[in-house]
Amino acid sequence: MKTLQELGMAAQEAKPIFAKLTTEEKNKALIAVADGLVADADKILEQNAIDMENGKKNNMKAGLLDRLLLTKERIEAMAEGLRQIAGLEDPVGEVLETFERPNGLKVVQKRVPIGVIGIIYEARPNVTADAFGLCFKTGNVVILKGGKDALHSNVSITDSIRNSLEKIHITPDVIQQITDTNRETTKEFMRLNSYIDVLIPRGGAGLIRTVVENATVPVIETGTGNCHIYVDKAADIKKAIPIIINAKTQRIGVCNACESLVIHEDIKDTLLPALAEELRKHKVEMRGDEVICDMLKDVIPATSEDWGTEYLDYIISMKTVKNVEEAIAHINKYNTKHSEAIITEDVKTAEKFLNEIDAAAVYVNASTRFTDGFEFGFGAEIGISTQKLHARGPMGLKALTSYKYVVYGSGQIRK
Amino acid sequence: MKTLQELGMAAQEAKPIFAKLTTEEKNKALIAVADGLVADADKILEQNAIDMENGKKNNMKAGLLDRLLLTKERIEAMAEGLRQIAGLEDPVGEVLETFERPNGLKVVQKRVPIGVIGIIYEARPNVTADAFGLCFKTGNVVILKGGKDALHSNVSITDSIRNSLEKIHITPDVIQQITDTNRETTKEFMRLNSYIDVLIPRGGAGLIRTVVENATVPVIETGTGNCHIYVDKAADIKKAIPIIINAKTQRIGVCNACESLVIHEDIKDTLLPALAEELRKHKVEMRGDEVICDMLKDVIPATSEDWGTEYLDYIISMKTVKNVEEAIAHINKYNTKHSEAIITEDVKTAEKFLNEIDAAAVYVNASTRFTDGFEFGFGAEIGISTQKLHARGPMGLKALTSYKYVVYGSGQIRK
Repeated sequence: MKTLQELGMAAQEAKPIFAKLTTEEKNKALIAVADGLVADADKILEQNAIDMENGKKNNMKAGLLDRLLLTKERIEAMAEGLRQIAGLEDPVGEVLETFERPNGLKVVQKRVPIGVIGIIYEARPNVTADAFGLCFKTGNVVILKGGKDALHSNVSITDSIRNSLEKIHITPDVIQQITDTNRETTKEFMRLNSYIDVLIPRGGAGLIRTVVENATVPVIETGTGNCHIYVDKAADIKKAIPIIINAKTQRIGVCNACESLVIHEDIKDTLLPALAEELRKHKVEMRGDEVICDMLKDVIPATSEDWGTEYLDYIISMKTVKNVEEAIAHINKYNTKHSEAIITEDVKTAEKFLNEIDAAAVYVNASTRFTDGFEFGFGAEIGISTQKLHARGPMGLKALTSYKYVVYGSGQIRK
Repeated sequence: MKTLQELGMAAQEAKPIFAKLTTEEKNKALIAVADGLVADADKILEQNAIDMENGKKNNMKAGLLDRLLLTKERIEAMAEGLRQIAGLEDPVGEVLETFERPNGLKVVQKRVPIGVIGIIYEARPNVTADAFGLCFKTGNVVILKGGKDALHSNVSITDSIRNSLEKIHITPDVIQQITDTNRETTKEFMRLNSYIDVLIPRGGAGLIRTVVENATVPVIETGTGNCHIYVDKAADIKKAIPIIINAKTQRIGVCNACESLVIHEDIKDTLLPALAEELRKHKVEMRGDEVICDMLKDVIPATSEDWGTEYLDYIISMKTVKNVEEAIAHINKYNTKHSEAIITEDVKTAEKFLNEIDAAAVYVNASTRFTDGFEFGFGAEIGISTQKLHARGPMGLKALTSYKYVVYGSGQIRK
């Protein structure tokens, strides 16, 4: 087993290969890797079976077991993901800006790979191929630290990828998997500043918190979503109700699902009876403020804790407000800066909301569920950033790049 | 004295003001603050005198005392800096991208302030006004934690700024200074994720290391520069020597100064005698590899430690290489990813170097000293980033912004 230092050094040594690979060569490699995964399916399934058996022995929950499980179809889907990444535009090399200085220096700001990316994830083996694909396409070496419970699966996927790369004479060390499952090793990995340029945690709130708490390597935080929909007094109810039902119930366990409604008091009488009926049909538990509890008998009184809770469940909180200002203040206080929507036909109120709400994505008259790399047309997604540095909202390939300034001179010195 | 929580809450409450201030109003405020500083000069100088006296008592070094010292001229220069920032283009609100999705959603990616920025700095009171100006112009609230040794100066500058803002009815809490000089408070400040969006340390390597080691708030690392110049076999000596002398000696204590030469062995006999003469004239100590020590009697043998050292002094290290590949490998191994230059007339070799060297700024036939916000024409600089996330190289106003996605719908729901 290699030490972290050895893995880091191998990553640094592999890095220069990307200065030499053309986009076409990278795309060919991605397709070769995809084909390799399909060819190695039996071997991968064998290893996955070991993880599944251990998971069952350790009483892993059904939902987690389902995420851990691989099948021929799921391996084919992983391969298809890589083929799709091969088809996307290569952001590396893009010229972002060019300017000439009075002294004749010509400055070109050019998009470049970040370098070495560390990914820390849980027991979802598909992340192994997915993260590799996104990093490889953008010219980044990736060091993976997958969950202990998926170790056999992850190692077999990584081995398959490495073998495919080796066959086409690309150094396999562009992808490495940490196999040491010791917690201290994971912490040390988060502090490997000499070898890693950025860490991306992919997983639940607990994992992300651990990485933010412990890392000294810069982190891209992908996070939680306590998303609101504000129904303005000028809302069109025929838009409001389907949007709310979609945002709340289309998929409950995701970060862009709606968790809380903010309702203008002038519209509550028109909106609430019909909305409540729809919510009941979808078995959504309603928790509301006093005004709403007075109106509807089956609403549970909401506590202030409810306003700050991402349920990820068939529960919704509801609060009435006197005006859009109060709605904005409430949302900015309790949101996680992910996705927020206003339903209104009033352009001025919409602009105020879009302008003053602090979130990665702000919507007028649409479901919060659209905050997603694929829905935004990025063709791929490494996660949804809820921090404000580097990348915000859905992160596609560009989020895995940095830039450098290339400066052309003819002997200039500084005065 | 306010607690950190109270400061953080006040910052959050002050934040919405920026959604309402126009660029013109921000510029007027910056000029009012500049005038206020000049008007308050006597009060500020009085407080600075206390810091200076304490500094002398505590045997502060002459260089540090000079940085701590304020004069009427220096206060006027601080004010002038603010007036210049008022004259710069406002990056906030810029539309970065617009696209329409097949379902009719119109997505606008818009530049927005980051939110609340924490600045940790040393005993340089001018940073107080400077950091405020850059943050205010970009619509960010700033919480400052200046060095203990400059506390009286910093508080008086902050008070002056706050008074000027209050007079024109802008909440003074857009700038706050932490006056608690306890080290634990500073550490707590670095972990104030609920209130602060980004931390920018401004100071020496020790300060930056402390922030990177301790912060859980995302950090923009401004850093050290072990900058190289590679003199290729196809170099024009008439360009090489002035560039090297400029990069090494024009200002020795700065991060973009040249610390190390890499010399193609085919050019050493033409270059070195004339270069050494110039370096001697500038009292630069030379440390070289065996080949160079054999050629020049006054060169001290370099150790491998020299290759990795940012001298910030009249010292230069020199290494010979067989070809550009070896030069690139050496530089990528020892550099700090700041600024690197090649001197050559060979376009192909230049392109290889510019492409394969991993640094924020790569130069052909120019001095590394140009890596600077003002030299790049940004009109201002908050620092030079040596990390790859968010911003790389000289950081102007844009580095203090994030973006948000504004999405216009007409009732879209996700399928």
